[in-house]
Amino acid sequence: MSQPTDEEIYESIIEALHHNDQDRFREEFFKNHTYDQAQIYLTLDPAERVKLHDYLAPQELAEVYDIIDEDDHDRILTFLYDMDDKYAADVLSYMYTDNAVDILNELNVEKVRTYMHLMPKAAADDIKVLMHYADETVGSIMTTEFVSITTNQTVKSAMTMLRAKAANAETIYYLYVVDDDNRLVGVLSLRDLIVNDGNVMVNELMSDRVVSVDVNEDQINVARTIQDYDFLAVPVVEETGELIGIVTVDDVIDVLNDEAMQDYSGLAGVDVDEQYSSPWNSAKSRLPWLITLLFLGMGTSTLISQYEGMISEVATLSLFITLITGTSGNAGTQSLAVAVRKLATPEDEASTMGSMILREIMTGLISGTVTGLVIMTVVGIWQSNFVLGGVIGVSMLAAITVANLAGSLIPILMDKLGFDPAVASGPFITTLSDLTSVLIYFSIASQFLQFLV
Amino acid sequence: MSQPTDEEIYESIIEALHHNDQDRFREEFFKNHTYDQAQIYLTLDPAERVKLHDYLAPQELAEVYDIIDEDDHDRILTFLYDMDDKYAADVLSYMYTDNAVDILNELNVEKVRTYMHLMPKAAADDIKVLMHYADETVGSIMTTEFVSITTNQTVKSAMTMLRAKAANAETIYYLYVVDDDNRLVGVLSLRDLIVNDGNVMVNELMSDRVVSVDVNEDQINVARTIQDYDFLAVPVVEETGELIGIVTVDDVIDVLNDEAMQDYSGLAGVDVDEQYSSPWNSAKSRLPWLITLLFLGMGTSTLISQYEGMISEVATLSLFITLITGTSGNAGTQSLAVAVRKLATPEDEASTMGSMILREIMTGLISGTVTGLVIMTVVGIWQSNFVLGGVIGVSMLAAITVANLAGSLIPILMDKLGFDPAVASGPFITTLSDLTSVLIYFSIASQFLQFLV
Repeated sequence: MSQPTDEEIYESIIEALHHNDQDRFREEFFKNHTYDQAQIYLTLDPAERVKLHDYLAPQELAEVYDIIDEDDHDRILTFLYDMDDKYAADVLSYMYTDNAVDILNELNVEKVRTYMHLMPKAAADDIKVLMHYADETVGSIMTTEFVSITTNQTVKSAMTMLRAKAANAETIYYLYVVDDDNRLVGVLSLRDLIVNDGNVMVNELMSDRVVSVDVNEDQINVARTIQDYDFLAVPVVEETGELIGIVTVDDVIDVLNDEAMQDYSGLAGVDVDEQYSSPWNSAKSRLPWLITLLFLGMGTSTLISQYEGMISEVATLSLFITLITGTSGNAGTQSLAVAVRKLATPEDEASTMGSMILREIMTGLISGTVTGLVIMTVVGIWQSNFVLGGVIGVSMLAAITVANLAGSLIPILMDKLGFDPAVASGPFITTLSDLTSVLIYFSIASQFLQFLV
Repeated sequence: MSQPTDEEIYESIIEALHHNDQDRFREEFFKNHTYDQAQIYLTLDPAERVKLHDYLAPQELAEVYDIIDEDDHDRILTFLYDMDDKYAADVLSYMYTDNAVDILNELNVEKVRTYMHLMPKAAADDIKVLMHYADETVGSIMTTEFVSITTNQTVKSAMTMLRAKAANAETIYYLYVVDDDNRLVGVLSLRDLIVNDGNVMVNELMSDRVVSVDVNEDQINVARTIQDYDFLAVPVVEETGELIGIVTVDDVIDVLNDEAMQDYSGLAGVDVDEQYSSPWNSAKSRLPWLITLLFLGMGTSTLISQYEGMISEVATLSLFITLITGTSGNAGTQSLAVAVRKLATPEDEASTMGSMILREIMTGLISGTVTGLVIMTVVGIWQSNFVLGGVIGVSMLAAITVANLAGSLIPILMDKLGFDPAVASGPFITTLSDLTSVLIYFSIASQFLQFLV
């Protein structure tokens, strides 16, 4: 594994803080990689943290804050409140703009105004621009610290420019070429620069078929672009073609991770990132779904109550309720998952809505037929009643087909209506398919009642 | 979105192939980014593809193959079989070693031997080394094309070395510093090189607390390292500390994506990447789970049959079977998802197995109590029988608690036994909890039978 934060260095850092030894603290602290500095920072108690803020310059703490994951941002908020306002504003101004905006978006308006007022105007302006972009758009994850050059530069002058900007740019490995109106016209990698002679012109080297994303697109599109093209960053343009930012691969990894967690949470009907909360909080976050579905489940109970007379006559029918609802619920969950994934991978645009649904119905009919035949045989032999076996088998076939249809149709409809299809949870599909399965089962059974008694 | 592969360029490429116009083909083809070249390549018909192989040098096709996703590797296999063996061997030898190995691992031994024999010995040797690493280890995704330097070099000599290696290295943005025994002792970024004076020594600039991964570790560890530290690549070492390869961020994105898909597929009890197959194939891949769980479900039916007499006496009891099994199944799925995620994020090592299970039981008790009270009231009023309401409420409480326990315990046990906890699917948990819920419900109901008639 990665080299651990050395226990001794950690001890030494804490000791230095307790002894008010700024020099030793700084020496030991900066031995660590920024990520490890952040891990140490997050473990400090309030008194230690105050000293650290005293010992580090705002730009040094900004680097630590830049690497801290969004999951830990609520902790940063409380740290900011403990700081001197001017120091906090400076830290935010030295952070990459996209990260600063993430934090500012979680603060109250009052506090944001205070910080914006206290920081250098240029930084505040950059931040203001980014704060306007809606959540989950490219604009909300892009940063404005990039390197742009013009076509009429030489490799040598581009290198000089790059050296000057290297300290602030989030990536220096791509240089974006713009025209006089700041419109993106080409791209060059640092690799191209260093292997070529200093006198070569930028426009001879640059690629003019540059892949870019629009600032208002969904962030998942830029994630897919980086994933497909194996880029380290992608330029972001306005509708006019003007270059206004970049999205880097590290931000994209977080986006892909969040999307995967959202899908997973959706399928399970629970926010899986709840993991750090108490049982009270866990129960509180899970109960809304449980109670909502309980009432949907009451619908199934009400439906069964219509057949209470039939059940008291043929109690054997009650043996197979959970078998039919359970199996069709499983089939519905499978369909749902496939449909949600399919909707999430739009490259497969050849398959239309209709063909997706048709294929799920076909799949349902095939798996329903196999499952139905198996259960017909088993029940027929077990209960020595092949009419009962047939009723169960045919009900199973119909219930599975309907569950497959529901499992694919519901996320597709949600997608068409503009909702995230991943919200159609597995528990919702199984509870819904309980209802349809019982309806199918008892309707069929009631037709053959005289053979079942 | 990304600039589309220009329709006209595409037409022009196809036309050039049909007119046997190699020059025009090459001119138009290389206007595209490698990823787009790959997309065009994959759409060609066999005759067009043969011409393309004729028009491109092996190292040019190797670049196209390097960017093609693993999902499309089975198509590459058939393309290779269509090529001249020597040409195919050359393409493989020019690819990044990790990608070539991915493809070779899917070929039969005979064919692998032929290719290895026909390619340059150095490439074959590199490939042989990588082929030894087990699937899903760091070794299986690392590449051997990296740049290493020694401590006693100057920035200038390092730059010269870098220029020479830039064409072949997978990344040139990190330079790894090794000692005389090729042991990793430091790291330097290209950013460090270009902003410093040419006479500065490497050992003055390099960071000596370099984060590396062991070649035999699980690939997910290197993915987490890159994700946490925002690296573009991580060096891979032998147990001896010897530097043998690197893993780059683009490979890590694919690993994270695969892991997320595995978890999602596990939860749904279906391989969600089945999306391109026919209904027959879909049904074939889904039926094993459905039929296995059908037999587990038969256990529940058998259990209910023990209470058949009680049901014919009090048919009302059958109304609430699906309500109790459904709700506890939903709760169990929620617990399962949280447990699987928790096991997948080992940073949270503070929470032991025991505390995780205890917390799920507590969560189950709390949500079970709330859900139980709700349903007790609803059923009590609806059926004008608060004893029945109480039986349902208490059963619900107990069934939810047991389902939460099962939902967390089963993945934890699987993890302890060395299996992937994500395989414990949602459908399995719901089917299992059907059984326990029915058992709880009828056991409790049978104690209060005289009040229920």
